[in-house]
Amino acid sequence: MSSIRRLGLVAKAESPDALATAWELADWLRRRGLEVALERSLLEAEGVPAELAGAPVYEVAEEYDLLVVLGGDGSLLVAARTVGSRMPILGVNLGRLGFLTELRRHELYPSLLKVLSGEMGFQERALLDIELSRAEGPPQCYRILNDAVIHKSALSRIIELTLRLDGRVVSHFRADGLILSTPTGSTAYNLSAGGPIVDPGLPVVVVTPICPHTLSLRPLVVPDAGSLEVQLDTQREKVFLTLDGQEGVELRYRDVVRVHRSREKVRLIRVGERTFYDNLREKLRWGGLSGGGRSAP
Amino acid sequence: MSSIRRLGLVAKAESPDALATAWELADWLRRRGLEVALERSLLEAEGVPAELAGAPVYEVAEEYDLLVVLGGDGSLLVAARTVGSRMPILGVNLGRLGFLTELRRHELYPSLLKVLSGEMGFQERALLDIELSRAEGPPQCYRILNDAVIHKSALSRIIELTLRLDGRVVSHFRADGLILSTPTGSTAYNLSAGGPIVDPGLPVVVVTPICPHTLSLRPLVVPDAGSLEVQLDTQREKVFLTLDGQEGVELRYRDVVRVHRSREKVRLIRVGERTFYDNLREKLRWGGLSGGGRSAP
Amino acid sequence: MSSIRRLGLVAKAESPDALATAWELADWLRRRGLEVALERSLLEAEGVPAELAGAPVYEVAEEYDLLVVLGGDGSLLVAARTVGSRMPILGVNLGRLGFLTELRRHELYPSLLKVLSGEMGFQERALLDIELSRAEGPPQCYRILNDAVIHKSALSRIIELTLRLDGRVVSHFRADGLILSTPTGSTAYNLSAGGPIVDPGLPVVVVTPICPHTLSLRPLVVPDAGSLEVQLDTQREKVFLTLDGQEGVELRYRDVVRVHRSREKVRLIRVGERTFYDNLREKLRWGGLSGGGRSAP
Amino acid sequence: MSSIRRLGLVAKAESPDALATAWELADWLRRRGLEVALERSLLEAEGVPAELAGAPVYEVAEEYDLLVVLGGDGSLLVAARTVGSRMPILGVNLGRLGFLTELRRHELYPSLLKVLSGEMGFQERALLDIELSRAEGPPQCYRILNDAVIHKSALSRIIELTLRLDGRVVSHFRADGLILSTPTGSTAYNLSAGGPIVDPGLPVVVVTPICPHTLSLRPLVVPDAGSLEVQLDTQREKVFLTLDGQEGVELRYRDVVRVHRSREKVRLIRVGERTFYDNLREKLRWGGLSGGGRSAP
Repeated sequence: MSSIRRLGLVAKAESPDALATAWELADWLRRRGLEVALERSLLEAEGVPAELAGAPVYEVAEEYDLLVVLGGDGSLLVAARTVGSRMPILGVNLGRLGFLTELRRHELYPSLLKVLSGEMGFQERALLDIELSRAEGPPQCYRILNDAVIHKSALSRIIELTLRLDGRVVSHFRADGLILSTPTGSTAYNLSAGGPIVDPGLPVVVVTPICPHTLSLRPLVVPDAGSLEVQLDTQREKVFLTLDGQEGVELRYRDVVRVHRSREKVRLIRVGERTFYDNLREKLRWGGLSGGGRSAP
Repeated sequence: MSSIRRLGLVAKAESPDALATAWELADWLRRRGLEVALERSLLEAEGVPAELAGAPVYEVAEEYDLLVVLGGDGSLLVAARTVGSRMPILGVNLGRLGFLTELRRHELYPSLLKVLSGEMGFQERALLDIELSRAEGPPQCYRILNDAVIHKSALSRIIELTLRLDGRVVSHFRADGLILSTPTGSTAYNLSAGGPIVDPGLPVVVVTPICPHTLSLRPLVVPDAGSLEVQLDTQREKVFLTLDGQEGVELRYRDVVRVHRSREKVRLIRVGERTFYDNLREKLRWGGLSGGGRSAP
Repeated sequence: MSSIRRLGLVAKAESPDALATAWELADWLRRRGLEVALERSLLEAEGVPAELAGAPVYEVAEEYDLLVVLGGDGSLLVAARTVGSRMPILGVNLGRLGFLTELRRHELYPSLLKVLSGEMGFQERALLDIELSRAEGPPQCYRILNDAVIHKSALSRIIELTLRLDGRVVSHFRADGLILSTPTGSTAYNLSAGGPIVDPGLPVVVVTPICPHTLSLRPLVVPDAGSLEVQLDTQREKVFLTLDGQEGVELRYRDVVRVHRSREKVRLIRVGERTFYDNLREKLRWGGLSGGGRSAP
Repeated sequence: MSSIRRLGLVAKAESPDALATAWELADWLRRRGLEVALERSLLEAEGVPAELAGAPVYEVAEEYDLLVVLGGDGSLLVAARTVGSRMPILGVNLGRLGFLTELRRHELYPSLLKVLSGEMGFQERALLDIELSRAEGPPQCYRILNDAVIHKSALSRIIELTLRLDGRVVSHFRADGLILSTPTGSTAYNLSAGGPIVDPGLPVVVVTPICPHTLSLRPLVVPDAGSLEVQLDTQREKVFLTLDGQEGVELRYRDVVRVHRSREKVRLIRVGERTFYDNLREKLRWGGLSGGGRSAP
């Protein structure tokens, strides 16, 4: 038996389907004698069962053993940045298969039974701390599980950026933007922009230019232990920094975005045999040998 | 009614399945009062029905109205280079869907009925004439429907090539090799090497370097009416020219490969609504919106 | 001798250097008995010589023989869209070498002497007409020499687009955006996004997705004579259409962008032997054999 | 002062220029009271000075303090695989700048003076052990500093490979071949084939398919501590394994190529401030902001 006694629960409060699944799951857990804490928006959702009242789970994370996220990869990104190392996370995808939320709806209860009996593993995923330094004011700090993206606005012209590693210039270049990705994020935006797929356990940051002017400027894989920074050298164009595709802030001339490995890591719960690469094969449709580009004569 | 009275028939003589399908099809055609001529290897195949004896179809192509190719894209490439403009071709894929042989086995008889009643269209596909000029001897000439590929041998080092258009140097570069592709061939090797997909009706040649040393050397699309030539500038490495992935010849230092639009075009028979792009969508699995690289947060 | 008697003159009115060059050039031309008309912003510039007063050149384009553009590729793009077929254009780059403005400052007078004595050629470049159709209001029309780009805003999520050719769906896909490029524009944004280089004389449109979600969605080269259209299928994200990187308009759900070959073509004046490919080689630094990615063992 | 007393010397024996430089350098070193040992082919070269006779340096590597390689990256690759951890290496490029041999001819003596006075640093570079297992016979072992490449012959068709990590299938795919690269080799063949640039200090292997049939099969970065293996699943085509582009062996059906991090690391001597990224910038011509693909309007 595992020692899991107290579970947190996150779901999209605006989705009737997710809410119904959440109430059903909470009931299922409570009938097994387990304690359940809800994320704040669930506590405030219409139809929340009275017996689920209590402190929002993120405020009492240290006292809880596990966080169940009902939703897509987007929901899990939010949860991961919020709880960091404080709770392991089990992601259940109510829609299609995700890279992060690898359980599907019909696997929810069978998997939970395994988890409650201790048949599970953990996979650690690195978080990156992003520090935005500007001419005035204190630096702003963010945390990401996927990526920090610097991108010009749609109506702006190409921008100039300087990339430095450990204080030395790596490149001074023109592009639409730049992706700073964790290994976890390597299968997200990074992949669309031509970057490599990186094993989720590696201590690296992937630096991928978006539509670079210089054609020989290629994706870079650098240590996450180093001091990596990107400076905006363009004055007149509108440029934004987005975090995990979910938060955004406008950048100004000479702003510097610094990337450090976070002290905290996310722990994803793995049930069953499915690996990162099994997931990849399915999501990217590598699977068989019948598809693809070349007509084999 | 169409005026189709005499049909040629090509199949892989070494495949029992293809042979059986061929004999069945020949019988079906003859029972409808149509004349059938076989490709030479079929005439010599074991078990050929006595009533199918006659001149090999390629020798009497002008007298025949249509060539049915039972096999994959590879079989159709051979047939297309051989008959050129002399007969239209109907490709039937006994295996999986091809780019060129778009009918599947179960569509064979329904489609033939349509063809015989005149319900069909033609799609012209350009052929390229390839001329290999060397220091000694007369030039050697080849014809391709897909591509001519210059490639170093696996054990050789990077090679140097010079690309000229209308007598002027376009680029002098180092690479593993170079693909000269028709629009038809753009979905074959060209695609694997990073080249674009080109509409099959365009009067162009796609020139795609394979693993170029200079990262800014990119695929080029040039007129097929021009005079395009590639010269081998490397002395010591083993280099080959392959035609449609089916024939190969070793290249020597200073050999020049010239590409001209052929006077002949292949006519592919189209039955039904299926377009080039429908085919692409299925083969490249563009189809839905659920697959691919980016986890949509 | 050529029959060139009347010349138009365009320069960046906000650049003192460009203005000085313009006045000097106008004087040089007038001393040779040639008539000079100025673009409107020059007519209104500070320090404009009194003898240069007259109708703005774009209003009297049909009466003029040649337009000299002093500036970069951006200035030439504006001029080309404005004059279309009405006047041939000679571009002089006051900064670094451009793809379109291939003369450099020191070549200005020697080249003009050649042009005035008839030693020149013309290169036609296709323009595309872009028609934006929306649920309400008449379609809006634009003309481009380089590209029309559909792109999500920096803070928006991935968008969905449907590409149709001649009324049939080519692909329904997710991406950051899409580039519709002329052959002339193939060396601009298209190249940064992974598209091919296309010979400027070809009758094609290059369709290049920007950071597509589906990795097998590749650049397409299609006839410019066809009916090509792109529909925005995303409701909630902010999306823009930009024309030649210079004008922008916000797109709405279900808006359709149609692309047609323009009836007008731009005529660029070519002095000397320099070709499109010579230019490419220099701009993309293909030049020698010493650079690039692979350490030759 | 450094403790360097005994130096080994490697040069291309077939190059008169390299030989002359070697004899001059040996003389320069001996006049400073240092001992010099030559690589075997130098000992056997015509014109070798009598006083340089002695044991070949690779046989007495442990007794020597430093190996000077006069030549290109190719010469350094051979030396690195041979000496492994036994001697640090100083590479001097007699031709153009290399990725590995970063000193140029005119920097030879000034740099050696620094080295002899202890003003230098070391950069460790990982080696990979490659084990080729076949149905019969003992496994064959190789060591690489750049890459192990599996590639079909020029006249063969596309091949099928299975990639496994830690015993589980990552992908079963069709391609021209596959590159298994160290971080050091990431700027060599890997870069030409579309792989990322990897910081030389990272504990990873880069796995890059060459012209893959499945377009979504992308470069992978995996731990070098894992058990990575590639199996050849094609029976009829000719396929080769090449090591650092210098040695080759034919592969047979079901052969398995295993990759392990080597226990030994190469130590490259660094003189001065020049970093890996300074080198990259120069070799890939990222340098300024003036080159590249996009005409900035």
